[in-house]
Amino acid sequence: MKQQRMLIPTLRDVPGDAEAASHRLMLRAGLIRQLSSGIYSYLPLGLKALQHIQTIVREEMDAAGAQEMLMPALHPSELWKASGRWDVYGPELMRLEDRNGREFALGATHEEVITSIVKDEIHSYKKLPVTLYQIQTKYRDERRPRFGLLRGREFLMKDAYSFDSSAEGLDESYTSMYNAYVNIFTRCGLQFRAVEADSGAIGGTDTHEFMALAEVGEDTIVHCPSCQYAANLEKALGRMPEQGAQSQASATSEPAKIHTPAISSIKQLIQFLQISPQQIIKSVALDVDGTPVIVLLRGDYELNEIKLKQTLGAADVSMLSENEILKLGSIAGFIGPVGLPNVKILADISTRGIIDAVVGANELDYHLTHVSLERDLPHTTYLDLHNVAEGELCSHCGHELLFAKGIEVGHVFKLGTKYSKSLGATFSDEHGNSEPIIMGCYGIGVSRVLAAVIEQNYDEQGIIWPETIAPFSIHLLTVQPQNEIQMKLSQDLYTALQQAGYSVLWDDREERPGVKFNDADLLGFPVRVTVGKKAGDRIIECKERRSGLSYEFTVQQLLAHCQSFFPIRRSI
Amino acid sequence: MKQQRMLIPTLRDVPGDAEAASHRLMLRAGLIRQLSSGIYSYLPLGLKALQHIQTIVREEMDAAGAQEMLMPALHPSELWKASGRWDVYGPELMRLEDRNGREFALGATHEEVITSIVKDEIHSYKKLPVTLYQIQTKYRDERRPRFGLLRGREFLMKDAYSFDSSAEGLDESYTSMYNAYVNIFTRCGLQFRAVEADSGAIGGTDTHEFMALAEVGEDTIVHCPSCQYAANLEKALGRMPEQGAQSQASATSEPAKIHTPAISSIKQLIQFLQISPQQIIKSVALDVDGTPVIVLLRGDYELNEIKLKQTLGAADVSMLSENEILKLGSIAGFIGPVGLPNVKILADISTRGIIDAVVGANELDYHLTHVSLERDLPHTTYLDLHNVAEGELCSHCGHELLFAKGIEVGHVFKLGTKYSKSLGATFSDEHGNSEPIIMGCYGIGVSRVLAAVIEQNYDEQGIIWPETIAPFSIHLLTVQPQNEIQMKLSQDLYTALQQAGYSVLWDDREERPGVKFNDADLLGFPVRVTVGKKAGDRIIECKERRSGLSYEFTVQQLLAHCQSFFPIRRSI
Repeated sequence: MKQQRMLIPTLRDVPGDAEAASHRLMLRAGLIRQLSSGIYSYLPLGLKALQHIQTIVREEMDAAGAQEMLMPALHPSELWKASGRWDVYGPELMRLEDRNGREFALGATHEEVITSIVKDEIHSYKKLPVTLYQIQTKYRDERRPRFGLLRGREFLMKDAYSFDSSAEGLDESYTSMYNAYVNIFTRCGLQFRAVEADSGAIGGTDTHEFMALAEVGEDTIVHCPSCQYAANLEKALGRMPEQGAQSQASATSEPAKIHTPAISSIKQLIQFLQISPQQIIKSVALDVDGTPVIVLLRGDYELNEIKLKQTLGAADVSMLSENEILKLGSIAGFIGPVGLPNVKILADISTRGIIDAVVGANELDYHLTHVSLERDLPHTTYLDLHNVAEGELCSHCGHELLFAKGIEVGHVFKLGTKYSKSLGATFSDEHGNSEPIIMGCYGIGVSRVLAAVIEQNYDEQGIIWPETIAPFSIHLLTVQPQNEIQMKLSQDLYTALQQAGYSVLWDDREERPGVKFNDADLLGFPVRVTVGKKAGDRIIECKERRSGLSYEFTVQQLLAHCQSFFPIRRSI
Repeated sequence: MKQQRMLIPTLRDVPGDAEAASHRLMLRAGLIRQLSSGIYSYLPLGLKALQHIQTIVREEMDAAGAQEMLMPALHPSELWKASGRWDVYGPELMRLEDRNGREFALGATHEEVITSIVKDEIHSYKKLPVTLYQIQTKYRDERRPRFGLLRGREFLMKDAYSFDSSAEGLDESYTSMYNAYVNIFTRCGLQFRAVEADSGAIGGTDTHEFMALAEVGEDTIVHCPSCQYAANLEKALGRMPEQGAQSQASATSEPAKIHTPAISSIKQLIQFLQISPQQIIKSVALDVDGTPVIVLLRGDYELNEIKLKQTLGAADVSMLSENEILKLGSIAGFIGPVGLPNVKILADISTRGIIDAVVGANELDYHLTHVSLERDLPHTTYLDLHNVAEGELCSHCGHELLFAKGIEVGHVFKLGTKYSKSLGATFSDEHGNSEPIIMGCYGIGVSRVLAAVIEQNYDEQGIIWPETIAPFSIHLLTVQPQNEIQMKLSQDLYTALQQAGYSVLWDDREERPGVKFNDADLLGFPVRVTVGKKAGDRIIECKERRSGLSYEFTVQQLLAHCQSFFPIRRSI
């Protein structure tokens, strides 16, 4: 392709409102343009990279035995009402009416549609298992679209759904998709981790998120540098380090009430009393499925709602209101575990062994000091209810856990029978019994992968594409297009490289060399081939974008070099 | 791919509500399923065929120098308001609001979006011409979705837009797209005609529709079997055959009033007076841009509104109301040209030379007979204002014109500056002057092509796929999968055929042979290879779906035969 007429509108300046590196670079390199908040057009180069990701996804999904199909984006509301999600999905689900007043949703995901198809077409165990997938646009009206393609409202997703007749079958389907995902993200050139995630209210057993590691990521990954353990923060388990001498000691004196006027937050307390957060035991007052519960956490720890729900087998957890706290005989901002006999109190393991703790006194403007749970609430049960903190120990191998930021690029999930039951998708087993089909679902944010790859592959000058998804493999740059010798050699190279199976963008523009070199670095294709002053000797420069290495080559040397540089040929 | 686990739900019975052959066959062969009126899911086989069409479209568009991109389906209303189409598009344009109450349209077409992108990115003649295209889902809330994929509400379209700095440039871009369309439809195996069409209110000069010939088509094509002339009915021009002796004669007597009680339609008049429609001159009373106009047509001809508009340079034409007709001094159902001095009267050429015509008497329940326009309205201007009728003569070569039914599968259109002016997309020319960019637009109904191909390629037993877009090239059928010899030979063939580059669906199902043969005919891949009783001798049957020819082959003979049968290899 010749660059002169191609729509590659590079920008010199960094667009002001683009916070993420990938967003800035995709705008600057002319890969995308915003049409509306969270809604983007893919310009030719951006689409090429996106298509290369799609090709990888298709190849790996097909190799795993999944079958591609394509479902509509317009979903009749009846299906979403049958699954119960029409009401619970909230404003993120975009809705409209047709000319006859019938309600539709723009598909945010396709469980309902695929389940209704399978319900109609598959009735016997003999037709199971089957895994179906599609690459389709999804619509989610995010409250705060940001970071370009990382959190958009109209985006491209690969979603797959497995249908099995047994739990063991689901395990196999799940593993097969898990492995395909590892292949896909590896081939896309991503640094990623598959992390244990929470299966939430749907009640599946296993679920993993595939996280591309990147500072801009909005998810926190807890991982062990020693063993393979990795989980998202919601799900991560750790072991509290030994607390040393303090835990052996006993409290210095009896609890004492102190006046703390209008001091109702941990931060204020630390400042007012000049103590560390490790000396504070905070009390979080919750409504757990209708029952008041107080959870105690060390001042520097956060409650992990997921762990609390799982521990108590609870469905709904919310904060108690100020009124409800009054009814318990306490007051918001000054709640404490001492002297609240009629409330269920759970202590997180982070509170164990604190001998001189400060807690709320259940009285306006007062706290208690010198509290020791072991002494003052001797029957307390200690549970793991906090978000793991960096420095806690890996529960598998005891090494200190590390934190990282990640972008969720994929998710595999054992759905079970939630949708097959609500939509009536059943099969007859070997004995003629009717059973709900057992489902799994598996998503990849295809357009998000594109942004995540760039988020991990750039430098000051621009993008550094992995060979597998670069819009073009080779950027051929003619320094002086008005020079006949340079143009002749460029044409020869253009033909030879394309015949050898490489995709080539030929910068034949009448621009200053500096502009062209800068654009080449910004666009960031793996290899730049420059035809300049030595064209008369048929000598060209070959520069690798990632390593920065450059060589002077003859045409034959260049072809030989490319053959080793690109182990896999990709002609598109 | 093995058929046992593939989702190919064939149906024995013809679905009752499917009127078109393609609709019935796509349902029966398990290619598509309806989700809602005019909204379909593509099952695996349907999607494969659709993807093959997309590949052909991409190859030809790329070869023509067009660049692929991808625009969103969600369009902010501001753009459609700027072009003026938000109001004129009517209920066919699906609309919704986001969570913040901003209005969006679901893209019915993308002129607004592409023009706004080009407006921002292209400013100089140096960057022109450029042609951009996408393959994207379109949404049109049809009043009456029908015929499966032929008229749906969510469908796949290829839309291209050319941008030029001169009218000559547009001519070239247009020709290039026209030629690409000829290649695309030819490669898809369609019987089609490129017909002259009307450019409507947009005011472009040239426009052609690509019509796939099919009885189910809702468009009428007028074509000449002798020369290349073809046009749609709206646009077609003919020449009235000579009227023979009648035109030489003069009227038999003076006009006379006859009582025709409650006889107000042509049909009633024919019956009541026992005359032929050729003896009637009907008067169509119209409001043309606010002025009343009466158009005279022979009783068996229909007004062509497009011709009328073009002749008069009019924008709006509507029927006069009964009240407005009264104001002219006439009465609805009994209008006639004689005795209406204050109305503009235009006579279609079909009325020329009728010597004993019946016309309305402008009086309730009365007509006039023995009218001759030449005598009674001597200053009448005769114009071509009627829809061509079969049997009229080709205006190019004089041969009798024929009618055919067609499905519009493509449309090329010289847009001009309508959108670039309303949206402000301008460029600087060589002299630094700012000019609106000159545009063309070019559409292909990709999913409609799929249906049109089937509409032209089937028999009693099922679909007969063209080799270029068949979901699979070869259907390998093992008659008795429990027979080890048959399975061994089938496995060998499956491997050998795939290695030779053919896509193969292997029917390895435990079904009765009759069911499998019927399904193979229904699915209609170009070549069926059957492994049956002669597997022991390594002899197989090869049957061509279209010709019905069948052969007994060795494996080597089969491979040689396939090589000549499939001149172009397609591995997907």
